[in-house]
Amino acid sequence: MSYKEIFSGMAEELKSMKNSGTVAAYIPKLCEVDPDKFGAHLLTIDNQHFCFGDSNEKFSIQSIAKVLSLAMAFELEEDKLWERVGVEPSGISFNSLLQLEAGKGIPRNPLVNAGALVISDILVSSLKNPKRELIEFIRKASGNAEIAYSPAIVESEKLTGFKNAALINLMKSYGNIKNDIDTVLDFYFNLCSIEMTCKELAETFLFLAADGINPLSGIRIVDSSKAKRINAIMQLCGFYDEAGEFAFKVGLPGKSGVGGGIIAIHPDVYSIAVWSPKLNSKGNSYRGMKILEYLTTRTKSSIF
Amino acid sequence: MSYKEIFSGMAEELKSMKNSGTVAAYIPKLCEVDPDKFGAHLLTIDNQHFCFGDSNEKFSIQSIAKVLSLAMAFELEEDKLWERVGVEPSGISFNSLLQLEAGKGIPRNPLVNAGALVISDILVSSLKNPKRELIEFIRKASGNAEIAYSPAIVESEKLTGFKNAALINLMKSYGNIKNDIDTVLDFYFNLCSIEMTCKELAETFLFLAADGINPLSGIRIVDSSKAKRINAIMQLCGFYDEAGEFAFKVGLPGKSGVGGGIIAIHPDVYSIAVWSPKLNSKGNSYRGMKILEYLTTRTKSSIF
Amino acid sequence: MSYKEIFSGMAEELKSMKNSGTVAAYIPKLCEVDPDKFGAHLLTIDNQHFCFGDSNEKFSIQSIAKVLSLAMAFELEEDKLWERVGVEPSGISFNSLLQLEAGKGIPRNPLVNAGALVISDILVSSLKNPKRELIEFIRKASGNAEIAYSPAIVESEKLTGFKNAALINLMKSYGNIKNDIDTVLDFYFNLCSIEMTCKELAETFLFLAADGINPLSGIRIVDSSKAKRINAIMQLCGFYDEAGEFAFKVGLPGKSGVGGGIIAIHPDVYSIAVWSPKLNSKGNSYRGMKILEYLTTRTKSSIF
Amino acid sequence: MSYKEIFSGMAEELKSMKNSGTVAAYIPKLCEVDPDKFGAHLLTIDNQHFCFGDSNEKFSIQSIAKVLSLAMAFELEEDKLWERVGVEPSGISFNSLLQLEAGKGIPRNPLVNAGALVISDILVSSLKNPKRELIEFIRKASGNAEIAYSPAIVESEKLTGFKNAALINLMKSYGNIKNDIDTVLDFYFNLCSIEMTCKELAETFLFLAADGINPLSGIRIVDSSKAKRINAIMQLCGFYDEAGEFAFKVGLPGKSGVGGGIIAIHPDVYSIAVWSPKLNSKGNSYRGMKILEYLTTRTKSSIF
Repeated sequence: MSYKEIFSGMAEELKSMKNSGTVAAYIPKLCEVDPDKFGAHLLTIDNQHFCFGDSNEKFSIQSIAKVLSLAMAFELEEDKLWERVGVEPSGISFNSLLQLEAGKGIPRNPLVNAGALVISDILVSSLKNPKRELIEFIRKASGNAEIAYSPAIVESEKLTGFKNAALINLMKSYGNIKNDIDTVLDFYFNLCSIEMTCKELAETFLFLAADGINPLSGIRIVDSSKAKRINAIMQLCGFYDEAGEFAFKVGLPGKSGVGGGIIAIHPDVYSIAVWSPKLNSKGNSYRGMKILEYLTTRTKSSIF
Repeated sequence: MSYKEIFSGMAEELKSMKNSGTVAAYIPKLCEVDPDKFGAHLLTIDNQHFCFGDSNEKFSIQSIAKVLSLAMAFELEEDKLWERVGVEPSGISFNSLLQLEAGKGIPRNPLVNAGALVISDILVSSLKNPKRELIEFIRKASGNAEIAYSPAIVESEKLTGFKNAALINLMKSYGNIKNDIDTVLDFYFNLCSIEMTCKELAETFLFLAADGINPLSGIRIVDSSKAKRINAIMQLCGFYDEAGEFAFKVGLPGKSGVGGGIIAIHPDVYSIAVWSPKLNSKGNSYRGMKILEYLTTRTKSSIF
Repeated sequence: MSYKEIFSGMAEELKSMKNSGTVAAYIPKLCEVDPDKFGAHLLTIDNQHFCFGDSNEKFSIQSIAKVLSLAMAFELEEDKLWERVGVEPSGISFNSLLQLEAGKGIPRNPLVNAGALVISDILVSSLKNPKRELIEFIRKASGNAEIAYSPAIVESEKLTGFKNAALINLMKSYGNIKNDIDTVLDFYFNLCSIEMTCKELAETFLFLAADGINPLSGIRIVDSSKAKRINAIMQLCGFYDEAGEFAFKVGLPGKSGVGGGIIAIHPDVYSIAVWSPKLNSKGNSYRGMKILEYLTTRTKSSIF
Repeated sequence: MSYKEIFSGMAEELKSMKNSGTVAAYIPKLCEVDPDKFGAHLLTIDNQHFCFGDSNEKFSIQSIAKVLSLAMAFELEEDKLWERVGVEPSGISFNSLLQLEAGKGIPRNPLVNAGALVISDILVSSLKNPKRELIEFIRKASGNAEIAYSPAIVESEKLTGFKNAALINLMKSYGNIKNDIDTVLDFYFNLCSIEMTCKELAETFLFLAADGINPLSGIRIVDSSKAKRINAIMQLCGFYDEAGEFAFKVGLPGKSGVGGGIIAIHPDVYSIAVWSPKLNSKGNSYRGMKILEYLTTRTKSSIF
């Protein structure tokens, strides 16, 4: 089945599917979204676009942005950063302190909250103007100067971010946070506040399907070997305690966010962004997972 | 760099590498092996062979065989088997009872010991003559009628298999083992006792690089979608607590055994078997991991 | 309030109390008991008896017997046994393998299942005729030649003892079980099968209220310092994950069994046995706990 | 042996003992103490004093003060406080977040850090002028108007209290902290900063040996039943992961602090304070534990 046929059949496929799950409640701002929204956008490395539904509506990409901060830190710090964060799947729920304590303050990987906080700390140390330089890096990746933080989401996260405060204080007690806690948390909450449409998300991540270069602009974002390694980390760690399920059913590296977005990468072929706000019990978009399984099954586009 | 150049340069590459680690001690029979053995065999789906070192010497493939029992059970039981075993990485050491207890007797995945015991139980239930039918399935996959169990290894495992007895008794207490414990353990110890050369191992697993068909014999072993899913499980769960490291550095689905063997699959391209008995602290072949990283880096043959 | 008044008021007190909880289901034989049975027997060190209800009916004392095997092993082995088992509360449910694995095969204390299995292994090693010598030791403590194992309970335990088999195999894998597993399990299941009445139970344990001597017979069972230490272990470890609750509300060292029995010791004053088959969610007799709280509150006989 | 003989022989006993262990390093202020200090003071309920060594020198009582905040909150809140904190031993190291997460923000008991933070939160809610009223309660218990917080210790704790910040943020995320985090931490750090001599410590805690009344002043501090229950909690939870060891060897309820102090209570008889700064691997005073074992063994004054 061609991508075109898949996207033509998507309305039908969605009808056959219940919109199960619940919208993320822990950040008040996220609850306000219409739970029936659904968007999808596939972008090939040779610039073909396929889209469906609310694919041009902005949503909070949340944890998906952790891949972008990782890419920036990896490019800046080379391999030194792996002394402070691992590359192994966590095996348990996404903000557990258990493994962090067992690991003496070294997070399992850069895509769990603790790991993204360490990556944030690294960027705060390395950059002169951390928030501005991060958003510029993301704009460069996306080729879109409009990408921005959402101050309203930042405020909402700050009011309820006690688990993240627990994580960062615990890592600080082990010496794995170098900067002031409030500075790092502010950077991290900004990172998680970014809003994009499905189209923008697919464009921003296309460099990971193209050996580290944004093929639309021709600009290198990370080097080729690092792009592969970031994909490997997404494959193993991108879906909290459901990474195996996603690999088994979808078969692509990807990353989800509690805003209901998912980005997935078919190396050398395409990036795809989907958005549906209701989350399953593991915190991943219920319909997003389903529609990606439908797509890769019909197009046989798994990497395996 | 071509495969030919890689294999030509392998002797040089090995010289630059310490033979670190320790030979598996917990099965007395495994200790008797020469720790300096090293073999590698790459086989493309169009039947090109590249080999090096002790690639024609038999060794105990141990846990690598768990992929084969999974393939057989998956083909027999379709999706029902996933009610009794998960597809998520374990995140901790390979025989831990902790997660099994937390999971109420459902193992995290079919490649940890507990999961392979459940798969063994399923095969003991489904097959008339379980041990004979399993070895015949493996001979069919490999196209080699000589593949056999090693009675000496079976005996050695039985004398020291107390952790496996703990695992299976715990799962029995949760109702997730249906047959007599000693029957299932006997089947499992036979499964783990199989000996192959690197060449035989690469031949046996080539169907996973070729959509479920052994391309040399043309015989279908599992259907196409199942081959992809088995590869996905290997990618996420094939290296105990080092699955992320293997994905990050090597970038191929694979499975290791405590005998020092590793199989890795490049879908649509090749299978490769390496063997070096000394294990790193995570229980995976020290030089095997290194040489595969060297190979995929130089040939840029990661799936990511 | 005097003991006499307490026992006179017990019927009234029981009426005001629901008989909540559930009879232990995991051993089929235990399910057959009438859930409304209730017995209590208090015996002072100067041989005053106070009894109530079904105090002369036999019931399965189950884990309460672990204190007796501990007493025998402690007397035989002096302090060497503490190299193989700890004295700390477990903090979690009574048959968890988690802590055992974390402790590298050393159980937290001699009153959890794993610890009692190690004590059983020690007695199997030390005694010529382990089962006979154990029951003789218990008869000596009780001053009652009729105390006996229950073969029916032993058989029932053997059919369902998979968790205990898991525990002992795990400890064997760490080298902390010296004898054949089936021999130790047989000894352990016999230990747990003993039946007593409340009166017999209070008589058997009176030596722990009297510095190690059975004051009725004048026979020393353990030395004075050991009696104190066994009481200390009961205080901290006698009620699984409810040891704190029992200390807080009752304030005496004691031990419960899944048969619904509880023994408690007031050093220098009395022993008391109660029996009510329904267990609370932590596996301790629901009404047994309540009535002991009533007794020690009214008599102000806590040790604290 | 009489108390007088014990204290006369103490110098000799100390000579036979290595001063093993290490002074607490995590609070800079605590490191400055002379590691060879040793003091002991026993005070009977009929006002006999026995002392030894540096028993009139102030030291930081640290976590010992948690018993006093518990006593105040228990007296104020009756049983409602047990909805927010348990009474079970923790079974693991004293500031672990693991059990707190498993317990959904309910600490195991009021003497671990997390539990003392909840007690602090309760007092901050209940009292008009929390810090002043707490110190007045402690002065009332001790009969000594000079007892005071140490601002230098408070400052030192604040600079390094990242684990406590992690704990309190985690509990706040579960809704088990009602007040502003910084206010509660400030109260908690003040609580832990109190300095006393061994003599003052024994005087302050004597009410727990006398049914809740300070027998020297005749003032009731807590009611009788609560005094017993506080002793029970100390017995089970007063020594982190060494509560069993302390019960087994010393046999009295007690509480240790990382400043090297220990208080122990013999109900109806005496209180005793010892101080020796070097801590064993479990965080309890090395020589303090030894000397108390010596004392209760020789005087046979265990409660068991």
